[in-house]
Amino acid sequence: MSSYSQINNLPPQISVGEYIFHRLRQLKVTTIFGLPGEFSMPLMDKLYRVPDMRWAGNTNELNAAYAVDGYSRLKRLGCIITTFGVGELSAMNGIAGSFAEHVGLLHIVGMPQTSATTKQLLLHHTLGNGDYEIFYRMANDITCYTTIIIDSDFCADEVDMCIRMAWVKQKPTYMGVPSNQIDLQVDSARLDIDLDLRLDSLINTSPIDGIDNKRTQSNGSFGQTDSQRIQDDITKTILKRIYESKNPAIVVDACVARQGLLRETQLFCELTKFPTFVTPMAKGIINEDMQNFGGVFTGSISSPDVREIVDFADFVIVIGCVLEEFSTSSFHFNIKSKNRLFIFDDSVKIKNVAYPEINIKNLLKNVLFELDQSKINYTFHKNLEIQVPRHELTRDQLLRQEWVWGEFSHWFRPGDIIITEVGTSAFGIIQTKFPKNTWGISQALWGSSGYSLGACLGASFAAQELEQEAAIYGNTSSGELSHRVILFVGDGAFQITMQELSTIIKANLKPYIFIMNNQGYSIDRFLHHRANAKYYDIQQWHYLSLLSVFGATDYETRKIITMGDLQDMLADQNFAINDKIRMLEVMVPSMDVPQAIIDKWQREKEGSNVINENDRPHSIETSNSDILSWSESPLTELEPERKKRHL
Amino acid sequence: MSSYSQINNLPPQISVGEYIFHRLRQLKVTTIFGLPGEFSMPLMDKLYRVPDMRWAGNTNELNAAYAVDGYSRLKRLGCIITTFGVGELSAMNGIAGSFAEHVGLLHIVGMPQTSATTKQLLLHHTLGNGDYEIFYRMANDITCYTTIIIDSDFCADEVDMCIRMAWVKQKPTYMGVPSNQIDLQVDSARLDIDLDLRLDSLINTSPIDGIDNKRTQSNGSFGQTDSQRIQDDITKTILKRIYESKNPAIVVDACVARQGLLRETQLFCELTKFPTFVTPMAKGIINEDMQNFGGVFTGSISSPDVREIVDFADFVIVIGCVLEEFSTSSFHFNIKSKNRLFIFDDSVKIKNVAYPEINIKNLLKNVLFELDQSKINYTFHKNLEIQVPRHELTRDQLLRQEWVWGEFSHWFRPGDIIITEVGTSAFGIIQTKFPKNTWGISQALWGSSGYSLGACLGASFAAQELEQEAAIYGNTSSGELSHRVILFVGDGAFQITMQELSTIIKANLKPYIFIMNNQGYSIDRFLHHRANAKYYDIQQWHYLSLLSVFGATDYETRKIITMGDLQDMLADQNFAINDKIRMLEVMVPSMDVPQAIIDKWQREKEGSNVINENDRPHSIETSNSDILSWSESPLTELEPERKKRHL
Repeated sequence: MSSYSQINNLPPQISVGEYIFHRLRQLKVTTIFGLPGEFSMPLMDKLYRVPDMRWAGNTNELNAAYAVDGYSRLKRLGCIITTFGVGELSAMNGIAGSFAEHVGLLHIVGMPQTSATTKQLLLHHTLGNGDYEIFYRMANDITCYTTIIIDSDFCADEVDMCIRMAWVKQKPTYMGVPSNQIDLQVDSARLDIDLDLRLDSLINTSPIDGIDNKRTQSNGSFGQTDSQRIQDDITKTILKRIYESKNPAIVVDACVARQGLLRETQLFCELTKFPTFVTPMAKGIINEDMQNFGGVFTGSISSPDVREIVDFADFVIVIGCVLEEFSTSSFHFNIKSKNRLFIFDDSVKIKNVAYPEINIKNLLKNVLFELDQSKINYTFHKNLEIQVPRHELTRDQLLRQEWVWGEFSHWFRPGDIIITEVGTSAFGIIQTKFPKNTWGISQALWGSSGYSLGACLGASFAAQELEQEAAIYGNTSSGELSHRVILFVGDGAFQITMQELSTIIKANLKPYIFIMNNQGYSIDRFLHHRANAKYYDIQQWHYLSLLSVFGATDYETRKIITMGDLQDMLADQNFAINDKIRMLEVMVPSMDVPQAIIDKWQREKEGSNVINENDRPHSIETSNSDILSWSESPLTELEPERKKRHL
Repeated sequence: MSSYSQINNLPPQISVGEYIFHRLRQLKVTTIFGLPGEFSMPLMDKLYRVPDMRWAGNTNELNAAYAVDGYSRLKRLGCIITTFGVGELSAMNGIAGSFAEHVGLLHIVGMPQTSATTKQLLLHHTLGNGDYEIFYRMANDITCYTTIIIDSDFCADEVDMCIRMAWVKQKPTYMGVPSNQIDLQVDSARLDIDLDLRLDSLINTSPIDGIDNKRTQSNGSFGQTDSQRIQDDITKTILKRIYESKNPAIVVDACVARQGLLRETQLFCELTKFPTFVTPMAKGIINEDMQNFGGVFTGSISSPDVREIVDFADFVIVIGCVLEEFSTSSFHFNIKSKNRLFIFDDSVKIKNVAYPEINIKNLLKNVLFELDQSKINYTFHKNLEIQVPRHELTRDQLLRQEWVWGEFSHWFRPGDIIITEVGTSAFGIIQTKFPKNTWGISQALWGSSGYSLGACLGASFAAQELEQEAAIYGNTSSGELSHRVILFVGDGAFQITMQELSTIIKANLKPYIFIMNNQGYSIDRFLHHRANAKYYDIQQWHYLSLLSVFGATDYETRKIITMGDLQDMLADQNFAINDKIRMLEVMVPSMDVPQAIIDKWQREKEGSNVINENDRPHSIETSNSDILSWSESPLTELEPERKKRHL
C-alpha cells in the first residue's frame, strides 16, 4: 500500500505550515478553532491547502479555547490558532482549564516576523517595553511544552514534539509561529512515518511542570525491559490485593477517558464485579447498566449508600486518577481507606509506594490478562444498579430541580454527548442515569463559568466527525452512529460566552441547548448563603429569540414552565431526533437547587453561622405568577432600588 | 470643616474591605466593574456598605476589563474585581491593554482564604499542582505594582500604595485579597488624610517594569530641591530652542490626557502658535478649532500637508509621549528631525540627553510661566484649520467610507465622547473634526478587537458621573454638562464582546452605537491583501434586534443604507438628544475603506508583490442589491462551498 505522501501526492518538500495540518489530519484532528489575526493569517492560508481540514472561526478566543477543549475530550487532541498578544491572552483562562483538567491540545500562536522582534520594531499588540517573549513565558505555567518555530533544521521535530506531548501527556502545548517562518521547507516523506504516541514514548519528560521539559527529545525505546519487569511486579502486587480484599471498591476518574482506557477499565470492573463508582468528572465512562455500578462518588457529600461502601472499603482502586485527594467548594473527595491503589495517567501508587513512569494502558492489560477470577475473595451480593424514579405529578406542577433531572434521565439514549455547566447543572446531572456509550463533559475542577457553551460547539464538531469516521471505517467504538449533543447551562453562565451560539449556527450544527433559567448565579447565591445579594442578579434576556437573531433558519425553541410542558417535550418523537438546532428555556425557581446541593448545604449549615432563614431552599409552593414574571425583565423592579442606592 | 470619617460618621475602626472602597470614593471612582465569584463575594458585600458606590455587574471578565479601561480614561482611575484563577485570567488581555496604553486601574482579585492555600487544600480554580501564586506571578508583567493583602499591620499601606501607583503611573496595579482577610481592621482616621498623588511622589519607582518595584515605598519629599534645580535647567534649555526654532512642530500624544495635562498643553499650543498635531491616540486632546491645529499625525502615512511640516521641522516637541518611536501595521511614527524634545509621563529627553524622574506637570507650568512670546522667532503664517467638506450626493447614493465620516463630523458637538474600534473606524475617525471639549477613545496601540464596546460601557458610566460632578461642584472642566457617548464599531469586533450591550441596558445608559457593517474583518481583509479569504467572513446577525432581546424597552434603531438615510438621521433634532439608547447599523461595502487606509495600501503596493487585482478598493458603482443582500445571511451562499471544501 502506498504512503501518505504518495496518496496525497505531495511534493518532496512542503511548508512547515502545511506540515502542521497534515500531522493533525493524520490524527483525525480536522477542525481547527480560533480567530484570524494579522500574524496568524499566513499560517491559516495553509489550512485550506490540506484536504479535509476546516476552520471553525469562533467569535472570540476564550470561547475558542473552551471549544477546542470540548473537541479534544472526544477526539483526544484539538488545535487552536490565536494571534500574538491580544489573541493568546484572551484564550489564557481556557488553556489553563485544559491544563488543570488534563485535556490535550495544541495552541498555535501567530507571531510577528522574526526581523521585527529582533529589531524591536514592532509595537502593535506589544506592551511597549520591547519584550516580545512575555506571552510565551506566561504560557509556561499552563502548558507542558512550549516552543517557537525558528530553526529550519528542527522545525518539523518541534511540530512533532508539540503534537506528541499534547497527545501523550494530555495537557496543552504552545507553539509560536513567526509569520515569516510559515514557508520553512520540510520533507513530506516525514509524514510517511506515524508519530510515536505510546504512553511511555515520552516517559522521561516530567508529567506536570511545563517549565522543566522544554525541547525534551523523545526517548521511546529507553529502558523498555526494565519497565516490563517493574510492570510485572506491580501486576503481582495488585492481583494479590484484589484477591485478598473482602470489601473492595473501584472509583473511576477522568484520566481513563483522557488516556483512552475505557475498554480496559470497563472490562476490569465487569470481571472483578467490585462495586464501581465514578467521580463527577468521569460520569459516562462506565456502563451504568452494570449491576455493580453504584453511581457518582462525591466524597463526603456522596449519598449514604455510596459512602457506606467506599468509606469502609478495605481496598480502594482509583483508576485514571486526576488528583489523589482534593477539596473544593463543590466536592470533597477524600478516601478514608489506607489500603489504596491509585492509577494516575503515567504512574501508580500502592499504599504509600509510588511507581513513576508506568505505561498504565499496558499495566491494565497485563492485570486483565493475569487476573484469575476464581481467586477473588469478594462475593458480589448487592445489586447497586441505579433506579431513577418516575414522580407522579400534575401537569400544572411547576418544575423542581429535585425531580426534573430524573425526567431528563429517562429521555437520554445511547450515544448521547451530555455537557453540563459547572453550577446547578453539574450537581443535577449526578442524579441522572446515563445509557450505554453516553459521553459526559463537565469542567468540574477548573470550574470556569461559561465553559459549557464553547465546549458544546467543540463537541458538536467532534460528534459530527465521529459519526463520519464510524461510517467510513465501520468503526463502532464511538458507540452508535448518531451522537446527540445535549447541553445544560444556567442563564448566568450562558451570558458569559453566548455569542458562540452564532458559530454553532454558522457551522449548521444541531445540539440541544437547555437553558436552565433560575435568574442569575444561583449556585453561588445558594452556597454562599447570599439569597438577596444584588450582585448575583443578571439581566433577563429573551433567550429564545437569539437563534433567529444570529441567523438560524431551521430551528426549534420551547419555553418549559410546567411538568406538562416538560412531559410533552420529552414524549415528542420528533423532538428526540437531532435534525435541527434546538434551544429550550427551562424555568426553575431561583433558590431551588438539586438534592446534591441541599445535602451539601445541610452539612455546611452545621458548621456555619452565617445562614439566614431566607437562604433555605424554597418549599414546593411556588406560584405560577412568580415564574411567569421571570420571562419579563425583573430589572423594572430592581432598577429603582439600584438608582436609590447609587445615584 | 469636619473630617471625612466624621462626615461619614465612621467608627474608629473599619474593615480593610470598606477602607478600599472609601479610598476609591474619595477619588470619585464610584462604579466598580467585574463579576462576582466565590472568593470575591465577601469583599463585594462591603461595597454596599459604602455610600455612592455602585456595582456594574459585567457579563464577562474581559468585557469588564475593557469597561474599566474606558472608565479610567475619563476619570483617571478605575477598579475591577475578579475572582481567583478563572476570573483574573479571563481579564488578562484587557489588563495588558491598559498597561500598554498607560491607563491607571486597580485590579482586585478575590483569593482563597489563606488557610486553604497554606494547607494546599483548595483545588477549585487551581491548576492542580498546589501552586497558588501562579496567577499572581503572571500579573507581574502587565502591572506596575502587585501585592496580596495578608499583613494586618500593613494592609492599609498596601491599599494606599496600589491606588497611588495606579493613579500616578497610569498603569494597572494588582491587589490579591484572600477571602478571610476582608475584615482586617483599619483606623478610619487614615481616611482623613488624602492620598499623596503628586506625579513625583513615587518618583523613585521605575516607570515601566512591573517586576522591579514590588512593595516600593512612597518617598514623595525626597530630593525636591534637586529636582527643582534640574527643572529650571530643563526649562531654560527648552525655552532657548523654542525661541530659536524657525520651523517648529508640536505633536501631542496620549499621556497628556492620562496625566491630566490638558490645560497646560492647550495653553502651550496657543501661546507658541506652533503648528500642532495629535497622534491617533491623542485625538480630542487639543482644541481642533485652533488655527495652528493641523490634524492627526500618523507618521509616514500622514497627509502630505502634515508630513511637509513635521518631517521638515527644525524642532519637534512631542508632549505626553507614549513611545519615542514605533512602527505598527497601522501606523509609522518616526520623526525625522534630529532636534527633538520628548516629554514622557515622568521624564524628558532633549536631543539625545535624557532627564529621568521629572514632574512634567510642574515642568510644563514652569515653561508656560517663563515663556516670553516676544522672543519667539517662528511667525505663524499658514492657517492650518481643518475644513471638512460637504459632498453633494444624491439621496439614493450608497455609503462610502470616503465621505461618510465627514458627515458624522458635522453632527458631533462639544462634550461628545467618541469611541472608535481599532480597524476601519479608527482610520475613519482621523478624517473627522472634533468640536471643542470632545473626548476621543481608541485602543490604537494594543489594538484588541472588541475593546470598544466594553469601553463604551465604562465611558457611559463615567460620563454620567462627570455630569453629576459638574452639577454638584459647578465644575465645568469636563466641558458642557451633557456628554453624549458615541461608539463606532465594526460588525466583526462587535461580535467579540457583544453581550456587554446587555450591561449597558441593565444600567439604563444611553450611548449611540454605530455598527459599521462591512461583513467581517475588513481591515485585515484589506491590509493583508486577502479579499476572498474565508476566515475573514463572519456570521451575519440581525444586530438591530439585540436591544429588545437583551430587555431594552426605551430605545431607537435605524438601518442606514443610503445617503438619504444618513442625512435624515443626522438632521433629526430628536436623534441628536441622547435620551435613550440607540443602535444604528450603517451598511458600508466590504472592501471599501477610509482614505487613510487606501493611502497606506498604495504605499504598501509599491513594496508589495502579493496584491491581486481583486484586492483593489471597490470602485464607486456598487449596486443596491449588493448591499441589501448583506442584511440577509450571506452564509446561505458560503455554506455550500464550505461544505464542499471540508466534508
